[in-house]
Amino acid sequence: MSFKMVADHAVWPLENDAIFGLAAKAKEAIEKYGKDNVIDSTLGALVDDDGNLICLETVYSELKSLPNADIAAYAQVAGQPDFLEAVQDACFKGYKPDAYIKAVATPGGTGSVRHAIWNYTNPGDSILVCDWFWGPYVTISEEFGRTVTNYELFNDKGEFNIISFKEKFEELLKKQKRLVTIINTPANNPTGYSLSDEEWDEVLNIAKENAKDPENKIIIVVDSAYIDYAGIGNERRKFFTKFSHLPENIFVMVAYSMSKGYTMYGMRSGAAIGISSSEDVANEFYYSAMHANRANWSNGTRAAMSVMTNIAKDPAKTKAYEDEVNSTKTMLRKRADAFVEGAKEAGLEILPYRDGFFVSIPCSNAKKASEELIKENLFVVALKKGLRFAVCAVSEEKCRVSPAKIKRVLDNLK
Amino acid sequence: MSFKMVADHAVWPLENDAIFGLAAKAKEAIEKYGKDNVIDSTLGALVDDDGNLICLETVYSELKSLPNADIAAYAQVAGQPDFLEAVQDACFKGYKPDAYIKAVATPGGTGSVRHAIWNYTNPGDSILVCDWFWGPYVTISEEFGRTVTNYELFNDKGEFNIISFKEKFEELLKKQKRLVTIINTPANNPTGYSLSDEEWDEVLNIAKENAKDPENKIIIVVDSAYIDYAGIGNERRKFFTKFSHLPENIFVMVAYSMSKGYTMYGMRSGAAIGISSSEDVANEFYYSAMHANRANWSNGTRAAMSVMTNIAKDPAKTKAYEDEVNSTKTMLRKRADAFVEGAKEAGLEILPYRDGFFVSIPCSNAKKASEELIKENLFVVALKKGLRFAVCAVSEEKCRVSPAKIKRVLDNLK
Repeated sequence: MSFKMVADHAVWPLENDAIFGLAAKAKEAIEKYGKDNVIDSTLGALVDDDGNLICLETVYSELKSLPNADIAAYAQVAGQPDFLEAVQDACFKGYKPDAYIKAVATPGGTGSVRHAIWNYTNPGDSILVCDWFWGPYVTISEEFGRTVTNYELFNDKGEFNIISFKEKFEELLKKQKRLVTIINTPANNPTGYSLSDEEWDEVLNIAKENAKDPENKIIIVVDSAYIDYAGIGNERRKFFTKFSHLPENIFVMVAYSMSKGYTMYGMRSGAAIGISSSEDVANEFYYSAMHANRANWSNGTRAAMSVMTNIAKDPAKTKAYEDEVNSTKTMLRKRADAFVEGAKEAGLEILPYRDGFFVSIPCSNAKKASEELIKENLFVVALKKGLRFAVCAVSEEKCRVSPAKIKRVLDNLK
Repeated sequence: MSFKMVADHAVWPLENDAIFGLAAKAKEAIEKYGKDNVIDSTLGALVDDDGNLICLETVYSELKSLPNADIAAYAQVAGQPDFLEAVQDACFKGYKPDAYIKAVATPGGTGSVRHAIWNYTNPGDSILVCDWFWGPYVTISEEFGRTVTNYELFNDKGEFNIISFKEKFEELLKKQKRLVTIINTPANNPTGYSLSDEEWDEVLNIAKENAKDPENKIIIVVDSAYIDYAGIGNERRKFFTKFSHLPENIFVMVAYSMSKGYTMYGMRSGAAIGISSSEDVANEFYYSAMHANRANWSNGTRAAMSVMTNIAKDPAKTKAYEDEVNSTKTMLRKRADAFVEGAKEAGLEILPYRDGFFVSIPCSNAKKASEELIKENLFVVALKKGLRFAVCAVSEEKCRVSPAKIKRVLDNLK
């Protein structure tokens, strides 16, 4: 081993982010062949049909009209108090659990997931996530000397695989006596799957059954990054009320992000929202997360907090903001429908899509498939078990024709 | 011990930030007695003579004229490439070391300090800082299971206590074989002390002497949070060139912050800048910090990076920005001079002030002194070894009269 200055636990491969590399290649192709001839489905951000990033007007006019001092000043370590109220409303809408609830501001959803893993597991522990998952769960876990265990997201019928979940959940809990499981729903990245309310009941029944052993500590993290693009109204938030009156050794944390719902990806704002039937457990969460805030990034982006708070406080602004989100959501739904229909027509197998930014295509040798698709000027992200197509970034027209292109390439690889 | 859901290492006292609490009290007093009758010297941010936060016009007009997409988009995980160039120029000005240098964007200086401690020490290690130090060094260290060891900042002559530094430095290095020492200079928080170039030579000689043992790994972190308010021109940056051609087992990291120099405290932007005579060590730093970025906050505040880059790219904007900083620096210098003169006149002992936002008054029972001063409507932060007076936040006139008030209260406590 060559000379190292960093400590052993901080040695990582000398490699750059793969998705950014692919996005750069897509950009080159657009410059060379013209944007009409390239399908860039790499980045997880909303892009209009002309290829421009969507930036909600209501959000950015609010941001740019903030007094300078409201942007410049430090936020409080836990977050501005009015933001910590507003973010709970933005998250739960009408479906707030009947429980002790505390929120702490974090940089995007990442900061919340990081706090959940750091604060609620021990070194060597394994985090439970499904086999179609957001890669950074592994990055975060390995950074802190934790590992990730997968259960299968889908059973043969294309439903949530509760049997696989239960098996891995109980296996890890038995060994560790404490378990953090992250459920990325609604609008799972990368599949677009959303757990149904009945599937949530099954998950919570397993948690409650295992909570009967008072030695067990069960932490359910709901990664709700894409919640604002799920469902039609607020029906995809109903499951939140199921977090009422849980045993005190089941703690629920929602990782809420402003990145997508407010198109403020680059402003790094979100919140960790802790839910418990025990006031002590909720307070313990709050002070533990506040300490972690102070020790990692000190405090959050104040301007982003003010944007949410100011919109929330003014009914006219709230209405304008919601109208804008809804029209974006409708656009996204049409694109996803076009992709799903195109897949059916082309006979392309895709995973069950319900909501959100992405659709996934299961396949073996996804890396090779992605490389072949680049030759067709179609850029998709290769995952371990398939390809991720970002309907958020591709026009309805291109969403409709993409499945046939993908099908052709996959067939040629067989 | 009561029922806990968090892991043992994440249990922290249920307490809020003391400085914010004091600032809130000061605000109440201002509302009650009027701002002319209250001296609020709590927060570490530049405030004009009317009590308003100073927000540099050049910075905020640039921010508010950014295209929305340049605020909305994710930044790259390591930071935008042009920012990573610009931030090196902003840090070193004419005094860039002749070395391999890599930068990574972080949320303020806190993110950089956090990376230094996490990536370059092992659990149980002790970090070396002086006895007049910024409290969060302890918060960060304890969060990660590290401790802090203090050396005495001053000798009897009020110079940098190189003997105390050497003693603790070698004691820890002998035990740990790797050592992170954080030197908060120029313009130390809380004393306003800046190491002279000769004192830097002494520090580096000790490091080089100890680097002769190839088993030793020495990491010097320069916390330069207040560098833009140090000195008259760029002379307080000269020491940076001393980091040229160091042995490869001495790694230097500058924790650079945009909070003060750009009055963007609430935007959370800065950089970790790694300096090494070994290209491998510089690269190792870069990828280790990038992994830590991804695992903690994903990526930095893009708008803040663009503000720095755009100002740096345009000579007229650069000139306007520098003029604005310089006039603020002059204001700060006058206030500090007034405080130092006032202290001399009143016979109040203060620590050697050179630059920056704060002056410190050594005293026993600082907490009691702070409480007594509140009764006089003078709000200062109590530290372990004395009081911190924030000249950044108090008008020249009030800076002149404060020392006599403090002297009177301290005398009464004797």
